[in-house]
Amino acid sequence: MSVERLDKEETIDLRKKHIGPSCKIFFSHDPIKIVQAKGQYMYDERGQRYLDCINNVAHVGHCHPDVVKAGAQQMELLNTNSRFLHDNLVLYAQRLQATLPEKLSVCYFVNSGSEANDLALRLARQYTGHRDIITLENAYHGHVSSLIDISPYKFHQLSDAEQNPFVHVAPSPDVYRGKYRASHPDPATAYADEVKDIIDKVQKKGGKIAAFIAESLQSCGGQVIPPVGYFQQVAEHVHKAGGVFIADEVQVGFGRVGTNFWAFQLQGEDFVPDIVTMGKPIGNGHPMSCVVTTKEVAEGFMSSGMDYFNTFGGNPVSCAIGLAVLDVIVKEDLQGNALRVGRYLCNLLQKQKEKHALVGDVRGCGLFVGVELVRDRLKLTPATAEAQEVIYKLKEDHILLSADGPHRNVLKFKPPMCFTTEDADLVVEKIHIILTDYSRSCLKKSVNPLEFVAFK
Amino acid sequence: MSVERLDKEETIDLRKKHIGPSCKIFFSHDPIKIVQAKGQYMYDERGQRYLDCINNVAHVGHCHPDVVKAGAQQMELLNTNSRFLHDNLVLYAQRLQATLPEKLSVCYFVNSGSEANDLALRLARQYTGHRDIITLENAYHGHVSSLIDISPYKFHQLSDAEQNPFVHVAPSPDVYRGKYRASHPDPATAYADEVKDIIDKVQKKGGKIAAFIAESLQSCGGQVIPPVGYFQQVAEHVHKAGGVFIADEVQVGFGRVGTNFWAFQLQGEDFVPDIVTMGKPIGNGHPMSCVVTTKEVAEGFMSSGMDYFNTFGGNPVSCAIGLAVLDVIVKEDLQGNALRVGRYLCNLLQKQKEKHALVGDVRGCGLFVGVELVRDRLKLTPATAEAQEVIYKLKEDHILLSADGPHRNVLKFKPPMCFTTEDADLVVEKIHIILTDYSRSCLKKSVNPLEFVAFK
Repeated sequence: MSVERLDKEETIDLRKKHIGPSCKIFFSHDPIKIVQAKGQYMYDERGQRYLDCINNVAHVGHCHPDVVKAGAQQMELLNTNSRFLHDNLVLYAQRLQATLPEKLSVCYFVNSGSEANDLALRLARQYTGHRDIITLENAYHGHVSSLIDISPYKFHQLSDAEQNPFVHVAPSPDVYRGKYRASHPDPATAYADEVKDIIDKVQKKGGKIAAFIAESLQSCGGQVIPPVGYFQQVAEHVHKAGGVFIADEVQVGFGRVGTNFWAFQLQGEDFVPDIVTMGKPIGNGHPMSCVVTTKEVAEGFMSSGMDYFNTFGGNPVSCAIGLAVLDVIVKEDLQGNALRVGRYLCNLLQKQKEKHALVGDVRGCGLFVGVELVRDRLKLTPATAEAQEVIYKLKEDHILLSADGPHRNVLKFKPPMCFTTEDADLVVEKIHIILTDYSRSCLKKSVNPLEFVAFK
Repeated sequence: MSVERLDKEETIDLRKKHIGPSCKIFFSHDPIKIVQAKGQYMYDERGQRYLDCINNVAHVGHCHPDVVKAGAQQMELLNTNSRFLHDNLVLYAQRLQATLPEKLSVCYFVNSGSEANDLALRLARQYTGHRDIITLENAYHGHVSSLIDISPYKFHQLSDAEQNPFVHVAPSPDVYRGKYRASHPDPATAYADEVKDIIDKVQKKGGKIAAFIAESLQSCGGQVIPPVGYFQQVAEHVHKAGGVFIADEVQVGFGRVGTNFWAFQLQGEDFVPDIVTMGKPIGNGHPMSCVVTTKEVAEGFMSSGMDYFNTFGGNPVSCAIGLAVLDVIVKEDLQGNALRVGRYLCNLLQKQKEKHALVGDVRGCGLFVGVELVRDRLKLTPATAEAQEVIYKLKEDHILLSADGPHRNVLKFKPPMCFTTEDADLVVEKIHIILTDYSRSCLKKSVNPLEFVAFK
């Protein structure tokens, strides 16, 4: 079977003709055509290998044979909706539940992180009878209408951004660049108090809090790791107001953080959200996702009198694939690998911080790592163009990395979980060369690196 | 590989424990456990065969080997997002486009009919700069928040139904039970004028129409076939108001209607919607869907400045599966089969109408067929309980059919497209026996069938 059927130029032409122009491609001036992938590697049409440091969807490695086999076998046998009994559905729900605190016991299977977060909002609003939602600055929760409303990362892109009156934005608990930094005696409390202030203001105006929603670690928002204790305090304030806590694990769940299976667990065992949403890595690329909640919230949702049916959600193929992903994580100790390789990678990157003024901050948990580039370590001036340059130069070295965050100056590592220390060595060595070249070209041109934006 | 791993009772218990209680199961008092399926047949854990007359998702037949093979082969090779170039994506978009009028040339691939309809609303609102939406009575367009708002079929289920002020409901163009019936000299114009009246009212209050959305044939709404010419006139009114026409083909597209590939084409060649949404049958069960629109609408959407990214949408596996489905439809002439078998089925059902007073109306296009049961052919009193009984009794005969519509009195046929005349004979014969028994038990008990609700 030939893996390429069109010349690259033809592919580009057809894409321009038939695919929505809002659907952006990586490296738009010279996009990559990928035809095959395995583990943490992707291959273009000429057989050139790329090291994938960004794809958190191919969680257990691209095209993992166990996952492919589970999907193919079930596709041959049966793929239908959840209005019939099927063992895969209930066994998978049971297995997922076993990774979570006991009270999170009821699952709804849907098709994407967006469907999961939208359903989470519906559950929260129906259960509480309230409508107001608190979200975080720079948050991204999905691409359907209700989620654009709660995603400042998206709605700030709109020319005529009009904030939904039921949505309230709390400061991102970013201890590097945010309102309260590492030097603050208690940033967790300070950030949680900001949420409390919002609740007070909403209530004064007659509003009622349905939910606080946050990624357990902000990903698109700039790889932000909230201070420990923040979620507990937020949950307390939100519960007092009659609302629920939604932890969005779409990007960061399934062992990525290394020490725990779920990123919200980094906050400590005393924190349990009321609703957890899952997506991207859950099916290693297969379109599926899940919302897990408590019996109380589920019963509250049912009391609306409206059934919930999702045509594809929880079908036997998706569940077979979901089960296989969980099996591989255990069998190959990928959570342990994320912890070990993540620590190794962070150490290497910390050394880069010592060597290069541009590296302002290195932060990470397991294979969720951010490197924030700044032109000035005191003023934290975002090194946006430089971050883009690093990404483009890495691409020339056949390494895929991305830059994100509100200033697009955070190098974002979220590779498949089979990433190795050798892969870490390779990407950090290349980054070192690129940053060294950068310093040199600044010197050569007698340019203050702070003012030298594009260092091509 | 064993296809059943748990006793049925255990499956039921785990489902109660771990699956959201709002997720309803067919025949809840005695649900069916399906473990395997092929073509138009499903098999339970004891090997009992069921004839599937309801699954419009398993479009080319359950577990079609060509579709399974295409999916499995691509899963082995590559499954990644559309930020890389890939031939499957553009070839599939090109193939889909070829089935549509030329101006519908730009695709957005997403994961479910709900994601497709939500995106269609976003496209419409961004392109027009307007906000108001006109939807039809009894319409169902999906399960995310924005679609519950435009789905009277759903929001009327809510105890505290509060209609979104930007949503306006027009009468369903149902010529059997609706406001204007077959006896009306020009129901198409009469129903379209109702839409025009809504537009006028909205505009008088300062509103602006973004879109009119309708299923090309209302499915959950009761298998309603709008009179020819209705869509053209509605489109004219809506365009004059600066809005667009969204045709929802999620349930009815891909050749089901027999004479045409798309159900909106039943209205005539002079009708072309501005946006078409696709779903359910598109991947024969694989979670995928699509929005197709014009270059103008797509460019208007881009002008918002917001990118559109969908993690799973348009991945190489989904597109390989989508291509295989299109291939099978052609190779096995399933559209032709839908036309032939659909006509045969409708003829058989018409004969039932002659024999049984309970059969008020038989309507259909291809393998989209509705049989409306009424207790009185003049008053059209819905025979709701009787329809439920027919469904339950057919289940005992190992035939799967459903009843839908606002009164749940319409027997809804939408089988896999490989349905045969023998299958039609079987199901209609069983219906004949059930309806004959019904008349007899009414007679025996000297009960007026009109007052004899549950005929168990």
